[in-house]
Amino acid sequence: MINKLIANIKKTNAPIVVGLDPMLNYIPDQVKEKAFAEFGETLEGAAEAVWQFNKEIVDKTYDLIPAVKPQIAMYEQFGIPGLMAFKKTVDYCKEKGLVVIGDIKRGDIGSTSAAYAVGHIGKVQVGSKSYAPFDEDFVTVNPYLGSDGVNPFIDVCKEEKKGLFILVKTSNPSSGEFQDQLIDGRPLYELVGEKVAQWGADCMGDEYSYIGAVVGATYPEMGKVLRRIMPKSYILVPGYGAQGGQGKDLVHFFNEDGLGAIVNSSRGIIAAYKQEKYARFGAENFGEASRAAVEDMIADISQALNNR
Amino acid sequence: MINKLIANIKKTNAPIVVGLDPMLNYIPDQVKEKAFAEFGETLEGAAEAVWQFNKEIVDKTYDLIPAVKPQIAMYEQFGIPGLMAFKKTVDYCKEKGLVVIGDIKRGDIGSTSAAYAVGHIGKVQVGSKSYAPFDEDFVTVNPYLGSDGVNPFIDVCKEEKKGLFILVKTSNPSSGEFQDQLIDGRPLYELVGEKVAQWGADCMGDEYSYIGAVVGATYPEMGKVLRRIMPKSYILVPGYGAQGGQGKDLVHFFNEDGLGAIVNSSRGIIAAYKQEKYARFGAENFGEASRAAVEDMIADISQALNNR
Repeated sequence: MINKLIANIKKTNAPIVVGLDPMLNYIPDQVKEKAFAEFGETLEGAAEAVWQFNKEIVDKTYDLIPAVKPQIAMYEQFGIPGLMAFKKTVDYCKEKGLVVIGDIKRGDIGSTSAAYAVGHIGKVQVGSKSYAPFDEDFVTVNPYLGSDGVNPFIDVCKEEKKGLFILVKTSNPSSGEFQDQLIDGRPLYELVGEKVAQWGADCMGDEYSYIGAVVGATYPEMGKVLRRIMPKSYILVPGYGAQGGQGKDLVHFFNEDGLGAIVNSSRGIIAAYKQEKYARFGAENFGEASRAAVEDMIADISQALNNR
Repeated sequence: MINKLIANIKKTNAPIVVGLDPMLNYIPDQVKEKAFAEFGETLEGAAEAVWQFNKEIVDKTYDLIPAVKPQIAMYEQFGIPGLMAFKKTVDYCKEKGLVVIGDIKRGDIGSTSAAYAVGHIGKVQVGSKSYAPFDEDFVTVNPYLGSDGVNPFIDVCKEEKKGLFILVKTSNPSSGEFQDQLIDGRPLYELVGEKVAQWGADCMGDEYSYIGAVVGATYPEMGKVLRRIMPKSYILVPGYGAQGGQGKDLVHFFNEDGLGAIVNSSRGIIAAYKQEKYARFGAENFGEASRAAVEDMIADISQALNNR
């Protein structure tokens, strides 16, 4: 799957991923009204609004982008109907040729991580049959429990040719509280980065490992160091746009080959129509606004990479 | 909810929690066969088997125990039907008067943690209506992202009178890989424990805080230290029984008042009928075997507490 991700990135010339994290207040009124008219102001109504919103954004952007990253929390908050919309979104994006990164940040003791792994990127056995319940291409994983919480995900990746992005240094303001703590003079996130490099070493695709890392756009200096620690790991970089990251901050997340990183933007793309910059599209053309925001993001990052 | 948990513990005289983590291979053949006869060897069939298995165990043990802890991964692995069985289990256990600890180990950046929090222990707004999608009483939370990943859960706890157990030192063999790393001579888990005590300080129930911690039974010496660091935090202690912990290892997780800890056993209770010790019940009476295992676990822990 890392090979497909890289092929998609080369084809689109766009090392970006669109975060499909639909908060209800990002969704234009006409989409919500239609969904509520059909299903009422219910969890089913919310899930339908989310799904219709996603579908329009995917339809208007899929030819420009290599991948999407639905954040499962935004679906899980609407219970079972929300998770059905998550599944529908994953399936639809894969039909459109996109690589789907399930942002699930799971991680537990071994047997429990194994259950998450088969549920999200593998197959679960039921009697003589097997099923791929959610079937994302990549998932994000929390490393706090150490190797035996991560290995079951890696095992499934090997079997199913899927991939991981493991949290190393997250984009949020308080990520340093534990992640930056110094251990023999070096921050914890560097130790986690070294582990990611080790875990990834025998999980190589053609050019890169399918065991990647998450490093926030909001910490570019740390990204530079982590790039060196994990030369063969793809880095998923959240925090661009609404969280504060900019193209020029991101060049050091990439290798000299122009590869090695994929930058996520969620709100900045999916709620673009709410920004003054894209207000000309109006709420009725929110998908077109998202397309324009994708084009601008690609241009910003390309320019930054060309100027380095 | 911490007051209800403590009241339930006092009433049953049993500081234990039954982990409802139903792997298919724990479920007796007759339960699976009946479910598969109705729904086929499908995700729906697996979910039905899980639900019927849980129901029998709850029916046979609920009067002895204060709480249950369903591990959501074991349901999520069966996709949407599995998650419906999770929800059904949560609702049923609450009807029976049990406190339900959703073992979900979520944790993300602020806005995303907020979505998990409303979905699992709070209410989500849909237009003019609000819904409590999963409605557990407590959930477990992963602290790797720091305060802004935890605070949205705390905010919802305050509003809804719910509670948390935050991962401090997990029960698995490799938990030390990151959690034991020394920072100025002290392990990371102690720093996390101090944070839990701080987070919990203004979240007090009558006797204890509703912001608790997870500390594995498999690390009793660390439990002793963490007990002192977090005197007012309830400690959820996984790892008893099948993972290796025993009653005598657990006394230091408790305070002098006999409170302050709740010990989880999953496989040791729910798959008791598979152990030689309870083989006399036979697979057909698996619920009775679980009841006997609960009684033995309560006796083991009571004896250890009386002998200290």
